[in-house]
Amino acid sequence: MDAIKIKGMIQQLAKLNYQKMYLDDFLLTWEKSDDEVGATFLVAEILRGLREINISSRIFDSGLGISLFRDQSTRTRFSFASACNLLGLEVQDLDEGKSQVAHGETVRETANMVSFMADVIGIRDDMYIGKGNTYMREVSQAVKQGFLEGVLEQRPTLVNLQCDIDHPTQSMSDMLHIINHFGGVDNLKGKKLAMTWAYSPSYGKPLSVPQGIIGLMTRFGMDVVLAHPKGYEVMPEVETVAHSNATQNGSSFTKTDSMAEAFEGAHIVYPKSWAPFGAMERRTNLYGKGDFDGIDVLEKELLTKNADHKDWECTEKLMAATSEGRALYMHCLPADISGVSCQEGEVQAGVFDRYRVPLYKEASYKPYIIAAMILLSKVKHPADTLNSILESGISRMKSMVEI
Amino acid sequence: MDAIKIKGMIQQLAKLNYQKMYLDDFLLTWEKSDDEVGATFLVAEILRGLREINISSRIFDSGLGISLFRDQSTRTRFSFASACNLLGLEVQDLDEGKSQVAHGETVRETANMVSFMADVIGIRDDMYIGKGNTYMREVSQAVKQGFLEGVLEQRPTLVNLQCDIDHPTQSMSDMLHIINHFGGVDNLKGKKLAMTWAYSPSYGKPLSVPQGIIGLMTRFGMDVVLAHPKGYEVMPEVETVAHSNATQNGSSFTKTDSMAEAFEGAHIVYPKSWAPFGAMERRTNLYGKGDFDGIDVLEKELLTKNADHKDWECTEKLMAATSEGRALYMHCLPADISGVSCQEGEVQAGVFDRYRVPLYKEASYKPYIIAAMILLSKVKHPADTLNSILESGISRMKSMVEI
Amino acid sequence: MDAIKIKGMIQQLAKLNYQKMYLDDFLLTWEKSDDEVGATFLVAEILRGLREINISSRIFDSGLGISLFRDQSTRTRFSFASACNLLGLEVQDLDEGKSQVAHGETVRETANMVSFMADVIGIRDDMYIGKGNTYMREVSQAVKQGFLEGVLEQRPTLVNLQCDIDHPTQSMSDMLHIINHFGGVDNLKGKKLAMTWAYSPSYGKPLSVPQGIIGLMTRFGMDVVLAHPKGYEVMPEVETVAHSNATQNGSSFTKTDSMAEAFEGAHIVYPKSWAPFGAMERRTNLYGKGDFDGIDVLEKELLTKNADHKDWECTEKLMAATSEGRALYMHCLPADISGVSCQEGEVQAGVFDRYRVPLYKEASYKPYIIAAMILLSKVKHPADTLNSILESGISRMKSMVEI
Repeated sequence: MDAIKIKGMIQQLAKLNYQKMYLDDFLLTWEKSDDEVGATFLVAEILRGLREINISSRIFDSGLGISLFRDQSTRTRFSFASACNLLGLEVQDLDEGKSQVAHGETVRETANMVSFMADVIGIRDDMYIGKGNTYMREVSQAVKQGFLEGVLEQRPTLVNLQCDIDHPTQSMSDMLHIINHFGGVDNLKGKKLAMTWAYSPSYGKPLSVPQGIIGLMTRFGMDVVLAHPKGYEVMPEVETVAHSNATQNGSSFTKTDSMAEAFEGAHIVYPKSWAPFGAMERRTNLYGKGDFDGIDVLEKELLTKNADHKDWECTEKLMAATSEGRALYMHCLPADISGVSCQEGEVQAGVFDRYRVPLYKEASYKPYIIAAMILLSKVKHPADTLNSILESGISRMKSMVEI
Repeated sequence: MDAIKIKGMIQQLAKLNYQKMYLDDFLLTWEKSDDEVGATFLVAEILRGLREINISSRIFDSGLGISLFRDQSTRTRFSFASACNLLGLEVQDLDEGKSQVAHGETVRETANMVSFMADVIGIRDDMYIGKGNTYMREVSQAVKQGFLEGVLEQRPTLVNLQCDIDHPTQSMSDMLHIINHFGGVDNLKGKKLAMTWAYSPSYGKPLSVPQGIIGLMTRFGMDVVLAHPKGYEVMPEVETVAHSNATQNGSSFTKTDSMAEAFEGAHIVYPKSWAPFGAMERRTNLYGKGDFDGIDVLEKELLTKNADHKDWECTEKLMAATSEGRALYMHCLPADISGVSCQEGEVQAGVFDRYRVPLYKEASYKPYIIAAMILLSKVKHPADTLNSILESGISRMKSMVEI
Repeated sequence: MDAIKIKGMIQQLAKLNYQKMYLDDFLLTWEKSDDEVGATFLVAEILRGLREINISSRIFDSGLGISLFRDQSTRTRFSFASACNLLGLEVQDLDEGKSQVAHGETVRETANMVSFMADVIGIRDDMYIGKGNTYMREVSQAVKQGFLEGVLEQRPTLVNLQCDIDHPTQSMSDMLHIINHFGGVDNLKGKKLAMTWAYSPSYGKPLSVPQGIIGLMTRFGMDVVLAHPKGYEVMPEVETVAHSNATQNGSSFTKTDSMAEAFEGAHIVYPKSWAPFGAMERRTNLYGKGDFDGIDVLEKELLTKNADHKDWECTEKLMAATSEGRALYMHCLPADISGVSCQEGEVQAGVFDRYRVPLYKEASYKPYIIAAMILLSKVKHPADTLNSILESGISRMKSMVEI
């Protein structure tokens, strides 16, 4: 990356129509236009480029980024903290604990009480169908109101760090990885992407990754196949989004209950476990009643159900059936690797090993994607601001003689 | 807010006599002169104004703010973190846990060991009568000594974030809210403020809020009434402060055991629960012995005692009896709202709802009050420094074209 | 300290040969040349000097310092956070918990996942013989690989904040304290330093302090004596290092099982408890099996064994036998002070009291030593960069009129 190339990307950015992102949240990718999604990718790449050539992209001299997590998560926490730090925000964590059921008054009040100096709020709340995204909108409404009423000096914007419906920071990072791997969006037309369920012995994982993938990847001309055993359906409203995307983009969205069929001729495979939909709904009901013992019982049940499908494993044999035997293997990490992190899991160790570097690169986009989402929601004229950052060229790290 | 108005406030500030605040702690409001209290309000308003017009008020390029909490507290933690961030300090939390009884040697040593880069220490220690403020003075003494002996390169100053005696960041924020609500200190003469006990089913709350209120609000010409059931007395030494304040300011401080009498004709009402004084003293003794089971038993006892006074609730009827039926309702939040956060509590939902926006605004002053306390204790010539900040006009957030 | 003196130290620094520290870790002092050790002391003093004259030594405009602790540690955490803050890095803590046994894949992946914006990683992992240092090298290898493969935009360097073998940030701080106390390295020739075991009732402490001391202090012409009861041996490979150092520096390294003999005529005494070597090895084995109950049983056993040696206490009588009766008493803190923090412990209260100020000063070097290690590993031309920092003279704290 060099300054010329960055300048070129800023010029591209200036041509897009993304003004509506200013002072708005990033909650679901399908609420964003193609230009808005494209602007996010561009800004992420520009920020990464600036860092590579040691130019500071601090746009804040002070300010807070609030991380609000319902579940403990080291990686998401670090991604959000990295993004905030890159832009000059200090992170303050608010761990509410998974057992606390927040009511309307509490949400409204807490959201305002922690936001007096907050420029952005990142929320992760993915365990309960019908809850996480709703909660984010409550928080968003509360701080918007607080800003309008003069309680807050600025409107904190929200970044969805994973909810029950979508996982936009993951799917956007994944997509940017795909774009770079295949050398540009133009090369994706007609490529086959298999988003498939895989067996996991560890716990009932949220649906937000498969939903995020089919909701976003169907916008780029790729043929997306969703594969899972019966009972592991995703939310029907997200399937509708995927169908509608495919129609508008002249691509396809199909379903199958065969992992082999999904892998056949695929250019990209994304085998990953999630919990049975019925179990997710029951979990939400138990949660509503505060029945945490019931949730533990349910967890055991669903792991037993998972075990009926141990053959859903990403093997060398399956990989061999993909396009030229070398589809791009993807995962949001950490993966359940057979014989490494568990006895039988989502992927054979040999496959995982071969793709370790691409997998790490896939993950490496996330802090930049989050930073791009923040920047686009806080800065009124992003292209101009990025240009001025590039021109002024303030070092991120003093390492040269500067007298 | 605009630059002209801020400039005016800095000129006002320059006329006050507050030099003694430099390198000093902020522990009790009644240890501060009227000019010192006034300077704190002014600096808080100036800092808020600067933020409104996007001027950075970082006075530190690096440095730490240590938060030392004996009890978990999300809101106080965020207020302190916000204040530190506004000035350029990074917060490091030191959670000692409530069960740890600190001895002299440990206090002295720990205070120094965490302060090598500390510019300010914020302490919250409010649960034990006779302990919290004493502990703060021990820490203050330890770091002052450390500075004099060359162990520390700077003297960390202390901000009392709530102790057993006073809650200066709360009462000062509340007072600034009152001043702004009534359009200036001059309009407060003869106003009636009712600080009254209210019923709470949740836990035995500290006395620092009512004490902080009567210890500060009696200095502004208002007639302050303290109302509570028998057995809910506050510390006699603070009542003495309130009486003395009232005498010096030509106002009054009176007591009653009737909530209705306190509300009658009041311009400001502050109905809020606290624990019975006797229970607080017994808690301290149990704590001294490390008898935490005893503390749990006591907690149940005092909630039972509280329940004798469920009629101490801020109702619409009581509000109707206040001046013109529209006294300013205040609370330090979170409140026990009847039918919302509990069955029966401190305030009716209708009253709370009507005052939500003013309540949030009341809270919004706290980060600026804390930042003002820090600034006045660290900067030798605050008016000059604030002027130079205003003149140089460095953006808090880059949002405009700046080439 | 003044600018002239700092300038002089920078000139001294420029003459040393320490280029190999750039982009390298600081894991064991005996892996570093004399010039590299000397450069670290100089940079620590320069950074302290800059802070004294209110010049900011931020070399990072943004960036993260990751603290990775296997054991909770307030003091080490604050030292690392202070060092990072001084240089402009924001700390993110990754507490893995002591019960989690990390496997190769997990270490490699986690190290990369938390390091996308990480400039430095500080690790403390000291409880298991043969584990801590090995773990650090695994993490180092993982992020070096991540950097080479383009996953990370920068290579995070590591600082050993205490492992099973060495405690370089402690021993280097201690050594800088000794140098300043005796007025320079030149005055240390022939001085006697007694590193001795002492009785502690609290827990089985790691060997890294005595090992770090004999591995470093034998390089400065001092006669180092290691004293302990039978069964409290340190790692033989570190004794070999100490012997070899002594040979190369024309000094001596000897051993004794008598505390009195060690103190006799000593100029510096460092009485401090550690666990029996055999117990440490058994702990490692139990840990490998995940047998945490077994570890608890072992802990009780070793405290019983410790109690056979309660006479290993640093008394006034022993101190009287040191050189002129006024050897420099040292400790890494916190000490087990007889009659203060325990009934019988490592040191009499009277001795500790007399040396409190020097002990605190000893500790005060640590944040600067850590910052020096970071700076030397991240900055290509340290002397030039420090010169430019001094010349530009940006205030750490705005406190003067600056219009």
